[in-house]
Amino acid sequence: MPVILGPNRYGKAETRVVRVVRDGGVHHIKDINVSSALSGDMADVHLTGSNEAVLPTDTQKNTAFAFARKHGIGQIEDFALLLARHYVGSQPTIGHARVEIEEYGWRRIPVSGGPSEPRHSFVRDGQEVRTCVVHHDEDGRTTVVSGLKDLVVLNSTGSEFHGYIEDEYTTLKPTTDRILATAVSAQWRHSGESHDFGASYDFGTSYDEVRRCLLEAFAGTHSLSLQQTLYAMGRRVLDTREEVCEIRFAMPNKHHFLVDLAPFGLDNDNEVYYAADRPYGLIEGAVLRDDAPDAAFAWE
Amino acid sequence: MPVILGPNRYGKAETRVVRVVRDGGVHHIKDINVSSALSGDMADVHLTGSNEAVLPTDTQKNTAFAFARKHGIGQIEDFALLLARHYVGSQPTIGHARVEIEEYGWRRIPVSGGPSEPRHSFVRDGQEVRTCVVHHDEDGRTTVVSGLKDLVVLNSTGSEFHGYIEDEYTTLKPTTDRILATAVSAQWRHSGESHDFGASYDFGTSYDEVRRCLLEAFAGTHSLSLQQTLYAMGRRVLDTREEVCEIRFAMPNKHHFLVDLAPFGLDNDNEVYYAADRPYGLIEGAVLRDDAPDAAFAWE
Amino acid sequence: MPVILGPNRYGKAETRVVRVVRDGGVHHIKDINVSSALSGDMADVHLTGSNEAVLPTDTQKNTAFAFARKHGIGQIEDFALLLARHYVGSQPTIGHARVEIEEYGWRRIPVSGGPSEPRHSFVRDGQEVRTCVVHHDEDGRTTVVSGLKDLVVLNSTGSEFHGYIEDEYTTLKPTTDRILATAVSAQWRHSGESHDFGASYDFGTSYDEVRRCLLEAFAGTHSLSLQQTLYAMGRRVLDTREEVCEIRFAMPNKHHFLVDLAPFGLDNDNEVYYAADRPYGLIEGAVLRDDAPDAAFAWE
Amino acid sequence: MPVILGPNRYGKAETRVVRVVRDGGVHHIKDINVSSALSGDMADVHLTGSNEAVLPTDTQKNTAFAFARKHGIGQIEDFALLLARHYVGSQPTIGHARVEIEEYGWRRIPVSGGPSEPRHSFVRDGQEVRTCVVHHDEDGRTTVVSGLKDLVVLNSTGSEFHGYIEDEYTTLKPTTDRILATAVSAQWRHSGESHDFGASYDFGTSYDEVRRCLLEAFAGTHSLSLQQTLYAMGRRVLDTREEVCEIRFAMPNKHHFLVDLAPFGLDNDNEVYYAADRPYGLIEGAVLRDDAPDAAFAWE
Repeated sequence: MPVILGPNRYGKAETRVVRVVRDGGVHHIKDINVSSALSGDMADVHLTGSNEAVLPTDTQKNTAFAFARKHGIGQIEDFALLLARHYVGSQPTIGHARVEIEEYGWRRIPVSGGPSEPRHSFVRDGQEVRTCVVHHDEDGRTTVVSGLKDLVVLNSTGSEFHGYIEDEYTTLKPTTDRILATAVSAQWRHSGESHDFGASYDFGTSYDEVRRCLLEAFAGTHSLSLQQTLYAMGRRVLDTREEVCEIRFAMPNKHHFLVDLAPFGLDNDNEVYYAADRPYGLIEGAVLRDDAPDAAFAWE
Repeated sequence: MPVILGPNRYGKAETRVVRVVRDGGVHHIKDINVSSALSGDMADVHLTGSNEAVLPTDTQKNTAFAFARKHGIGQIEDFALLLARHYVGSQPTIGHARVEIEEYGWRRIPVSGGPSEPRHSFVRDGQEVRTCVVHHDEDGRTTVVSGLKDLVVLNSTGSEFHGYIEDEYTTLKPTTDRILATAVSAQWRHSGESHDFGASYDFGTSYDEVRRCLLEAFAGTHSLSLQQTLYAMGRRVLDTREEVCEIRFAMPNKHHFLVDLAPFGLDNDNEVYYAADRPYGLIEGAVLRDDAPDAAFAWE
Repeated sequence: MPVILGPNRYGKAETRVVRVVRDGGVHHIKDINVSSALSGDMADVHLTGSNEAVLPTDTQKNTAFAFARKHGIGQIEDFALLLARHYVGSQPTIGHARVEIEEYGWRRIPVSGGPSEPRHSFVRDGQEVRTCVVHHDEDGRTTVVSGLKDLVVLNSTGSEFHGYIEDEYTTLKPTTDRILATAVSAQWRHSGESHDFGASYDFGTSYDEVRRCLLEAFAGTHSLSLQQTLYAMGRRVLDTREEVCEIRFAMPNKHHFLVDLAPFGLDNDNEVYYAADRPYGLIEGAVLRDDAPDAAFAWE
Repeated sequence: MPVILGPNRYGKAETRVVRVVRDGGVHHIKDINVSSALSGDMADVHLTGSNEAVLPTDTQKNTAFAFARKHGIGQIEDFALLLARHYVGSQPTIGHARVEIEEYGWRRIPVSGGPSEPRHSFVRDGQEVRTCVVHHDEDGRTTVVSGLKDLVVLNSTGSEFHGYIEDEYTTLKPTTDRILATAVSAQWRHSGESHDFGASYDFGTSYDEVRRCLLEAFAGTHSLSLQQTLYAMGRRVLDTREEVCEIRFAMPNKHHFLVDLAPFGLDNDNEVYYAADRPYGLIEGAVLRDDAPDAAFAWE
């Protein structure tokens, strides 16, 4: 029989865990979405249906909830590491675990005046999502990729586009002043090895600083193309954060077309735009250190 | 023939207009989604297909863009009034216009340090959407409903639920401490008449204050039911803002179920929750002044 | 206190019930989404938080599941009637129930050859959704509205648009041959009263025939405007199905724009189109018998 | 400077092309969504913003429309090949093209009776989407991956799950009769090389037959785990279709939980289920020939 089983994994996706920590009367909230995927000695379950090597996805869901209680939820990377190491460490048939977590932000509701300031009331903070993907295997290899998505940004000037190839299908006019808007999806790889990712590794500060680099580089780059902006954002991160060795982007060019108002006797000097949905440009790219360690399975 | 044409309207939905205003080097951005719907002498177009009375939806799209250039976009209610009055005022066959606008928020990207502070760089501010629905008809009647949607809020304590009806299908256990979370959709009706809604009517301050009332009442209400919270939020708005005569809510009860960790030898004292998607409670209700003027077509 | 509670209701939305019936080795599947909303003596729960009059939404969820077991699920209108009558009939504080159900279609997977034809294997049948909304109140008034949504249809010719109003914002060119495409949302009201909607009322045949009328009228109407098509569809239903007294539509005009290929030296004789997302036309209208009974709360 | 540019590509995503072919009075419709992504000598555009090597995404959009007119749209794989070869063949700076196409199905609206049978009226056929991803590079290497997604299937019996690992977080009960439901996403790689994919290569028949294999294997497999079903589906395709060398799946386990009706005095013998949204199991796996040619960039 010349047919074989190729790469495979299975797990529980999108377990929505919310944890409340009560610090006296002040509450703290953590709102995450956990997806775990395991692989290992899985030939039998595919070929014969024997589940002897299978830790059910239902158990993975339970584990996420139980670990939130037993260990708390600190930085999402730390929680993902905890889960990934648990699956590989506790089950001989599981040789590899991939844990992906999304985190949704909340901020306190501000209340005017007095001692009655609410300390357990929150409002969702934006549509932006913090992410991480952690891999850990039975050989002790560990990779950590942090990220964010749906960070929607816009420069209302400081963007040009010209000097491109023209062929028989070109109708686009060059411009020296356009709106540049995108929804940033970025994922950055930490260069550390397994033993580095301990209690003292500060994923929280790392995230805040990378996010700040991304926003500042987007805002501060006079752009001749979205690719140039992408590279500048990646460069800024790598120049600033030594713990990061590679960063990858997927950035849609959310087109804002200047509306032709001439038929109505009106000029339109970069003032009124139509925000289009589809089609959209899509720019993808990686920036990395030339001595970045091998990525192994980090990006899978 | 005993079959007749009933209520009808037609229009262009979801014209996405973005306007940039340059104040020296500082830019301001307005990002809106305009839907207009017209009605009037429309028997012919339905019965014979004659379009003599029809102002095409394509023209409505053009008008939204052209008006953004000619008149600017201030508060969305003002822009909606402008459009609605234009359609009814300029076309004898159009007796009634309904204009609905959504506005998406942006805030400036903060940049650390120096004179190079970006003045034309923005980041999308949350998933919350500001809304309005304006009606205007040929008899000069005008209604304005302002609103917001997707304002997601959560109290991590201060919510109880007990004392309800129990029947043969009851399994729910009463609780004196639960998470209360919802995505607020609220729409409030301004009590003014057409002539009130002029240049001096301050829809901006009104919106900000109503939103503040909603958040503060949500945070400040010890809740025995989501209905009680809903009413308290409406009450707060009407007690505070005299220009509002009625407010309507649709608030899903975004259930957060305490996870049973006993099978794992763990307690769970209101700490770890499962955030469920479906099904969800849905609470809808209105709060109004008992002398509120007739709503006419405001809520259509 | 001049502030009062206005119209309100509460319930459990989107309880996803799937029922399997085993007819020997042949299985039948029913896949529905149930939303119930109750109203009645609800002043207290809003004003004081007392839940004495409240049948919890959790119990409504349980009831949907239990009724699926006790009574089966026939036509969705029948199941909605059963639930609505139960809530009003069993709870003195509940004066009115609204039950909305969506049904998702499945068809059998065809298997080639032999006696092993699968009798319990299904594939989802389209994106179209069958709907109903039933109201029932303590005075014994009952309304039934059946419907469908997301029925996407397209005529590749036989559609014109010209002869419309032209004003200073008109740029649209008239056409005598265009694509007409829409996603039909239609809801039709049954003219019967409460006692009519018994076991012998055939909602299944009614639905199938109304749907057939809608498709055939869409296909068979040479259209000068989408409004004309809408009216023809409604007319066809009312002319054919005497049990229906009113039908309401919301039909987006899903624009297909002919692409200008002249810059590339190509003609384009109604051959290549760009299917646009936003903005879109939106046509809404009702067709009814002139002796239709009062709609009461049917459309709420 | 130790920072370098990594893998990158750019293109136009989701150009929605609809083509109508008139065969006398009978029309045929093709409804596709084209995404192209190009890569090559792109260091400059990232580092300096020079667009000299860039064929704008706007031009890629135009090309998709123009090619639909010039060459028609046959099987989506053929159209993708045409575009990919054009980009690499016509632009020296473009060394690699990836073209992804989705196709949406339509079927004719049946009309009862007579010669007036509509020949240009269509209804959208399901939510299932046919897909392909074609890669072509300047060295003449070509890969073709066909696929489908959102094919939702369900077996109402013939599925068991037991014999799995139990650990301290296990609460799941084993079952010998459950509902098995999933939304199949499958992609299969054709083993041919560039010169094979000419006019005589029949992608249409291949697609129909693979789809049939998938459905029949899903329906015909008594399942002890979703992994077993996945493998059986892949195996069936490879055993049947010699042109396919590898197939990859992502199949969510769309959980249908048997509702506990005992509190209401009701049994529930695999009759009433709750269809859950999240979390869900997610099973991913590949099945391939052990002599499958190297995949190169096929899966990127």
